[in-house]
Amino acid sequence: MLANESQNPELLRKYQSLDTPFLSVDKQIVLKNLARLRNKIDGLGAELRPHFKTVRAIEAVEHLLPQKISPITVSTVKEAEALVEEGYSNIVYAVGISEGKLPRISQLIAKGAKVRVLLDTLEQAQFVSQYSEQHCCVIPAMIEVDCDGHRGGIHPDDPLLIEIANILHQGVASFHGVLAHAGESYLCFDPKSLAEAANNEVNMTLKAANNLRAAGIPCDIVSIGSTPTAHSYQDLNGITEVRAGVYGFFDLVMAGIGVCQLKDIAASVVTTVIGHNREKGWIFIDAGWMALSLDRGTAGQPKDCGYGLVTDCNGAVLDGLQVISVNQEHGIIGAVDNSDLSLDNFPVGSRLHILPNHGCATASMHQHYHVFDTANETYEIWNRIQGW
Amino acid sequence: MLANESQNPELLRKYQSLDTPFLSVDKQIVLKNLARLRNKIDGLGAELRPHFKTVRAIEAVEHLLPQKISPITVSTVKEAEALVEEGYSNIVYAVGISEGKLPRISQLIAKGAKVRVLLDTLEQAQFVSQYSEQHCCVIPAMIEVDCDGHRGGIHPDDPLLIEIANILHQGVASFHGVLAHAGESYLCFDPKSLAEAANNEVNMTLKAANNLRAAGIPCDIVSIGSTPTAHSYQDLNGITEVRAGVYGFFDLVMAGIGVCQLKDIAASVVTTVIGHNREKGWIFIDAGWMALSLDRGTAGQPKDCGYGLVTDCNGAVLDGLQVISVNQEHGIIGAVDNSDLSLDNFPVGSRLHILPNHGCATASMHQHYHVFDTANETYEIWNRIQGW
Repeated sequence: MLANESQNPELLRKYQSLDTPFLSVDKQIVLKNLARLRNKIDGLGAELRPHFKTVRAIEAVEHLLPQKISPITVSTVKEAEALVEEGYSNIVYAVGISEGKLPRISQLIAKGAKVRVLLDTLEQAQFVSQYSEQHCCVIPAMIEVDCDGHRGGIHPDDPLLIEIANILHQGVASFHGVLAHAGESYLCFDPKSLAEAANNEVNMTLKAANNLRAAGIPCDIVSIGSTPTAHSYQDLNGITEVRAGVYGFFDLVMAGIGVCQLKDIAASVVTTVIGHNREKGWIFIDAGWMALSLDRGTAGQPKDCGYGLVTDCNGAVLDGLQVISVNQEHGIIGAVDNSDLSLDNFPVGSRLHILPNHGCATASMHQHYHVFDTANETYEIWNRIQGW
Repeated sequence: MLANESQNPELLRKYQSLDTPFLSVDKQIVLKNLARLRNKIDGLGAELRPHFKTVRAIEAVEHLLPQKISPITVSTVKEAEALVEEGYSNIVYAVGISEGKLPRISQLIAKGAKVRVLLDTLEQAQFVSQYSEQHCCVIPAMIEVDCDGHRGGIHPDDPLLIEIANILHQGVASFHGVLAHAGESYLCFDPKSLAEAANNEVNMTLKAANNLRAAGIPCDIVSIGSTPTAHSYQDLNGITEVRAGVYGFFDLVMAGIGVCQLKDIAASVVTTVIGHNREKGWIFIDAGWMALSLDRGTAGQPKDCGYGLVTDCNGAVLDGLQVISVNQEHGIIGAVDNSDLSLDNFPVGSRLHILPNHGCATASMHQHYHVFDTANETYEIWNRIQGW
């Protein structure tokens, strides 16, 4: 339920007073999405380590994590710095570490935070180990496991896994465990293939952990996760934690995969109609790629949603309409699937909402999110942490 | 010439000390690109009205404009506010106006700035006129002309043109002229079709101006422009001004169109190698779509450059390499066109530069640009104006 459905006149006035385009977040939907996954993972006996990269706003962390010592994942050192500044202390920086970033990591460790780095090469293990020794700072590291050939990581049976872990385990740096991400699960479109991707992620990562233990190397953390697989696990025995990012906001890609419905999408871009092309049947809006992002994540899905689906201000999806094209500050809404579009229903000045392909990408285009909670009649601003 | 080719050790140290990814701008190339188009348009007897949307940094304006009263174009009210704050006063806001933005526009006008709005519907002319009357504030407006069926605007021969202009001309708002943008010129890949697109843009816009004058409506400003056509005009007789945006930075799309060469691209993303996938022949870098943008502008061009071409730190293009895939904070460089790629030439920790598809989109992902001038041995930061 969006702000203008609210019976609270103050909230409605706030919503109407904001200049478009802006990112509107429905807080009740976010809280429901967050609780849904946390309950599932709790129920399976693992811990949830939310990925901060989607929301990247300190105001949101209290909703992502039950406590300040609860685990969280980041994609940039900048996020880790902001979290440590606020007293959060259990962090995995889940992008392959480069030597140049170690001074900032070690500063966070010196402040008492556990910030674990991720790696999958001998060179990385060596420089992390050397840096730890030279700077009397134990940098904890995890090894990325390749569970599905998606991107990086080491195959569980590759002898390199033991070799790298040994450098960390026997050196001054410390080895904390293994981490996998089932990136290929984004190509699953039915419950059966999602369950298979989830099982595969679990099994491959357990295999890596067991191979390490068989070689005499402790492997405390066994971390897996992607939003599609996180909602599909059946058994997490042996898995210590699950990571997911976009599950708080959700988006059209996740709806296409089937792990949420359109009504679960919490973040949308509010835009104003600024013109028409009557010959072509186009509506011009003031949300271009600067507000929507250029993400076309649904392009490879069974239902391609263009640059976003269109809803009215109450969140009702306007069937047959899509953002079919974007420029920097212009979007074009057109009819698809032979739908009718009466331009007169959308006069200049009308407000619409655009549901994003990819919540992470669309959120990244906004410095601030405008967060409406119609149940509690509150409005707040979440400020996005920017840069690296 | 990039910073690390400099003989100045301080500049080199600065370049090396910056954490990747970051946007590096070669100031000498920017200045050369800016001078090239300004000289061309000056020579043809028109004024240049640079589009601020690409650079969006106050530190850059002194290079874009000869004087504070020189004309400039913006794509957001936020840019106009930042410019007026610094004393720039001759602005066209070149995105269709919505009523909700008029209070901020009128505040800028009250400060003495000429901020012209753009429109192409009767409704817009009516609310601009009414607002002007009700708030005793003359809002100057221009009418968008459709020169090539690309997006919005009114065909020069459409009677609506006169009708809209009359509302403005006879009301309290004032009518300042016509504006066209040859958006279809982005689909031109040879000098002949570029020249045709340029001539068409000139002729269609002149036709609109002449039709207005024939109806007794003065049309002082005749504004045209796009970076491809701006470099292709032969005769600007009757045209008062030319707009272009990306010509200062240039990019792979403009190189594909043929209005610049790769060596003219001034802005690139500096990134670090963070891993490899030896089986697939991939190099992982710490520049994903957060640093590069998701723009695939070259996808429709004869030479598709993926998510960007790769250069070494001296700006030499590494033939056969491209960014073939991006995630939020990961990029993947791979070989294309059956090229060889020896991963050992790119060890973890190596620095590379990525040339962007679209300078506007890539710059938009960065809060700060790191600007190196090796000729004058200076380093400066340009701070991007963000939001709307």
